[in-house]
Amino acid sequence: MPRHVDHDERREEIVLGVIAVMAEQGFAAVSLRSVAQAAGVSMGRVQHYFSSKVELIQNACKLFIQRATAQHVESGNLPRQERLEALLTMGIPGSADERIGTAVWYEFVTAGTKDDTIADLVAAAWRDRHDNIVALLDIDDDRRSLTAAEMAKLLAATSDGLAIAAMLGRISGEDARSLVAKQINALEAETA
Amino acid sequence: MPRHVDHDERREEIVLGVIAVMAEQGFAAVSLRSVAQAAGVSMGRVQHYFSSKVELIQNACKLFIQRATAQHVESGNLPRQERLEALLTMGIPGSADERIGTAVWYEFVTAGTKDDTIADLVAAAWRDRHDNIVALLDIDDDRRSLTAAEMAKLLAATSDGLAIAAMLGRISGEDARSLVAKQINALEAETA
Repeated sequence: MPRHVDHDERREEIVLGVIAVMAEQGFAAVSLRSVAQAAGVSMGRVQHYFSSKVELIQNACKLFIQRATAQHVESGNLPRQERLEALLTMGIPGSADERIGTAVWYEFVTAGTKDDTIADLVAAAWRDRHDNIVALLDIDDDRRSLTAAEMAKLLAATSDGLAIAAMLGRISGEDARSLVAKQINALEAETA
Repeated sequence: MPRHVDHDERREEIVLGVIAVMAEQGFAAVSLRSVAQAAGVSMGRVQHYFSSKVELIQNACKLFIQRATAQHVESGNLPRQERLEALLTMGIPGSADERIGTAVWYEFVTAGTKDDTIADLVAAAWRDRHDNIVALLDIDDDRRSLTAAEMAKLLAATSDGLAIAAMLGRISGEDARSLVAKQINALEAETA
């Protein structure tokens, strides 16, 4: 029986290697050699699927965003406010492992300032998050000083600021999550 | 008449060179040579005042924070809410020049993850900002769902998130500043 090769799986294995290198050694350490080593495959196989370091990083960014999107989709059964909280606390690290995830995300954000493909991926992810927040807000624009779009921008910015603070150990993940919930309450309760 | 040498001035001239290199070429480009060139002085003079790259960057971080603190002190005559707004929008870039300032600040923040002196400087700056925000808030804890400390943490996080969004061109500086003002109003207006 001929050996069946799942190319998508092999690609993903390599792309996870890129994320592992970024997490453990930072963005600058991503190379054919380091990625092959992290993924446990040969350098030849990495080259077979990806032609450059930039392509490796672009695909890592894509996978990272796909997983975050999947996480949001999976939360579909939760009540509205819990789902909004889940979305806004997704980037806030609660453990050392998650801290690394947040750091990797900001490496993509930084890489976006130098690579248009990554910038587009990051921008699309942010737009999706914005639209998802707006859809999950329970507000009546008429009687308020903030529109849903403004509130979504504030909540997203607060979530980003808290994620960075937690990543840097300035605040615990628990406190950051609790502040997100309080801000949602405060903003939704406020009337003009 | 003997030539008077102002050592503080000479040191500051070099330290401004460090910030210029960080702004123009990024953190990794800071070297004896690049700093001497940016400051318009000899490499010998840089070495006379600073013994290492790390020391150069630590001093650049210190100067950066001193200037931000001075800016807050200068706003002392403004009405309370304007002063709070000024403090919370200080890091939000409104121009390309200011975008570079924000980027330099985040280079210090990142450097702090690898250098304890820089981490301490950044942490002290953040503590000062927190205390200044609390002092400028006009709230009565008794009738509210958020304490002054919680509100200060939320406002600081939002300010950071908006500064990064503006730095990356996701939002205009003007919109970011207006959102800060709206958040202050919404949070101060909210009652439990």
